[in-house]
Amino acid sequence: MRHTAGPEIERLIQLLARLPGLGPRSARRAALHLVKNREKLLAPLAIALAEARDTVTSCSICGNVDTSDPCLLCSDRRREKGTICVVEEVGDLWALERAGAWNGQYHVLGGTLSAMEGIRPEDISIATLIERASSGGIKEVVIALNATVEGQTTAHYITERLKSLGIITSRLAHGVPVGGELDYLDDGTLTAAMRARRPL
Amino acid sequence: MRHTAGPEIERLIQLLARLPGLGPRSARRAALHLVKNREKLLAPLAIALAEARDTVTSCSICGNVDTSDPCLLCSDRRREKGTICVVEEVGDLWALERAGAWNGQYHVLGGTLSAMEGIRPEDISIATLIERASSGGIKEVVIALNATVEGQTTAHYITERLKSLGIITSRLAHGVPVGGELDYLDDGTLTAAMRARRPL
Repeated sequence: MRHTAGPEIERLIQLLARLPGLGPRSARRAALHLVKNREKLLAPLAIALAEARDTVTSCSICGNVDTSDPCLLCSDRRREKGTICVVEEVGDLWALERAGAWNGQYHVLGGTLSAMEGIRPEDISIATLIERASSGGIKEVVIALNATVEGQTTAHYITERLKSLGIITSRLAHGVPVGGELDYLDDGTLTAAMRARRPL
Repeated sequence: MRHTAGPEIERLIQLLARLPGLGPRSARRAALHLVKNREKLLAPLAIALAEARDTVTSCSICGNVDTSDPCLLCSDRRREKGTICVVEEVGDLWALERAGAWNGQYHVLGGTLSAMEGIRPEDISIATLIERASSGGIKEVVIALNATVEGQTTAHYITERLKSLGIITSRLAHGVPVGGELDYLDDGTLTAAMRARRPL
């Protein structure tokens, strides 16, 4: 491809293209939008990124990313202290928060066990989870991992470890997504939804 | 929505959501991707944006955005000097360059005439185009405006002005997009493609 603009703009396009959701073409469009809105968008975004670079850290308790440690969620006194929800990634935590689906504590594993990729229990934050869960006052640990093979393997491993310590675990319910059409659902989901049917 | 992270991250998400191609949800995902890749992506992007903010300017000849004035294209001696391609926006110029479809000069109007929105000839870069086109040595002006009502009105206006000065104008061909399926094309395109049919 011929270069249509100076190296500074080409570099900006290349970096934007590495954001999830932006391909090479939309990164070009985004870069153009930025340079055309220098004062209203480009300059504030440059500052916001520099601030994030200088202030964002990982929460030493739960593994959430935030600009304070402990993070806003861990230091929020209104949240329930006795329950921990285990998620794979920070994005899952944000999704649950966005939905307002959880008011307890979180624990971000930072990955799932995978024999294929050689990810062992010591490679993700399982030890700290066991420590938190067994430090007293924890009534329940909700395993909210993805319904994938790796997610379920990890959920099983954690459940066994916690059970041996006498801690109650649970998992998210399987079923028909709200607004979902039966015709488009896979057999596993339909079977799970049927098995877990509720009286009306 | 409840805040899951500090104000610095929320601000970053808000700004990213204003980029074309990113909605509120994908902006959140992009912000997370940035903070998780602080050294490899967030820091370089912060620098790239600050550099763009400080260096990007509008080319005083053609209206392209670049970090030099005249822009890379206007100062490229290998490009043909005697032809000017007129486009509405910088994005159109980039699209033609990406395709390698043009090797002459450009002129960015910065908009199209619109009675509805009150955009008059003096509101877009028509005067400078007429000046460039009539300064001598220009053999042809290609009007590469969008095939919309506003684009075509503007093309007509410019053509009349240039014709009265004795300058040859042309427009992009209409026809079937390469790879396009006839069944999905509108009647206007099909009619134009049929009228402009070529011998095989």
